[in-house]
Amino acid sequence: MATYRAEISLCTKERVEIVDITDRVLDACAKSGIKDGIALVFPHHTSSAVYISDSDRSLTGDFGSILSELAPEGREYAHDLTDYKKNAFGHIRANLAGHHILIPVTDGRPDLGRFQTIYYAEFDGQREKEIVIKIVGE
Amino acid sequence: MATYRAEISLCTKERVEIVDITDRVLDACAKSGIKDGIALVFPHHTSSAVYISDSDRSLTGDFGSILSELAPEGREYAHDLTDYKKNAFGHIRANLAGHHILIPVTDGRPDLGRFQTIYYAEFDGQREKEIVIKIVGE
Amino acid sequence: MATYRAEISLCTKERVEIVDITDRVLDACAKSGIKDGIALVFPHHTSSAVYISDSDRSLTGDFGSILSELAPEGREYAHDLTDYKKNAFGHIRANLAGHHILIPVTDGRPDLGRFQTIYYAEFDGQREKEIVIKIVGE
Repeated sequence: MATYRAEISLCTKERVEIVDITDRVLDACAKSGIKDGIALVFPHHTSSAVYISDSDRSLTGDFGSILSELAPEGREYAHDLTDYKKNAFGHIRANLAGHHILIPVTDGRPDLGRFQTIYYAEFDGQREKEIVIKIVGE
Repeated sequence: MATYRAEISLCTKERVEIVDITDRVLDACAKSGIKDGIALVFPHHTSSAVYISDSDRSLTGDFGSILSELAPEGREYAHDLTDYKKNAFGHIRANLAGHHILIPVTDGRPDLGRFQTIYYAEFDGQREKEIVIKIVGE
Repeated sequence: MATYRAEISLCTKERVEIVDITDRVLDACAKSGIKDGIALVFPHHTSSAVYISDSDRSLTGDFGSILSELAPEGREYAHDLTDYKKNAFGHIRANLAGHHILIPVTDGRPDLGRFQTIYYAEFDGQREKEIVIKIVGE
């Protein structure tokens, strides 16, 4: 049995932004040397989320729009009375988007469907953030 | 340590439909021979989701209704300008429903509560789809 | 390779309530003796969810409010015609909140970011509920 841990660091240009991290996850899987198992892709933050969706980039804007309607930025949140970052909307969108993902690893690679792409959705960015990748397998 | 991989294939009659796949997941767990571990149930697609809910079938309609209000079919999505399937609503509902699940495996069986039932929510069906089951344990 | 299973039992005072269970998850990880792996935190119910968010308690009210707007209690649900508990809203909120979580375990502890806190969101409480913690690692 083997376990592997890696960290992805990134800093988005916009406060709210969705970026494709598929290659970086593929890379971590390759480096792990693990042939068979499961990989957890887990932001070390509570105002961002990792999720899987279609390879079409324009869909990230559609998903972002829906999330911003479900948890709007202008709304009155109790959290924002005490947190100067006023990022309650970001925490809530991170939870609605699912926060973290698990992917199967087979033959040393993420076992994804043809169009499956891994995205990092940032809701309070423009600062360094970390994503932990933890793989368990053999 | 052991790992196991299986695939469930299914094709829904309706484009949007929720079906009970509990027995097929139980079956895969039994075949795996793994007594103790965790099982990932992971659609190989981005317009469907696996989730856990109550055994009452009428609740699937309620959940489906809420999801169709959160990401309506009629709305203007950038994705639908280039994808002839016009399934942006399906991709987004899949993410809001959580896409994939993890279940504990104990004594060779999914370690579920009394009413917990495993559903596959299809948002762009009427064609063959696959769900990967990956189990890690011993 | 090692696996570990524990149960957290709890009974909320209110029907709908969000409570911090971080210490109880830390405790289970410590007792497991597993140094490296992943931990699944999985409610054995379909009307509650475990999720990760910021350490600020007032944010739980904000998240609860959003969820109660997305799946309101007063609405007509098919499920509530046959289930005397009339908890359809609770089942659906549990799914929107994500139901269960996976956390990395490193050096014998949950490998969480500085502010990451583990919450249990109850949507049909005032009765005994169980959360299964299943850890796989070494």
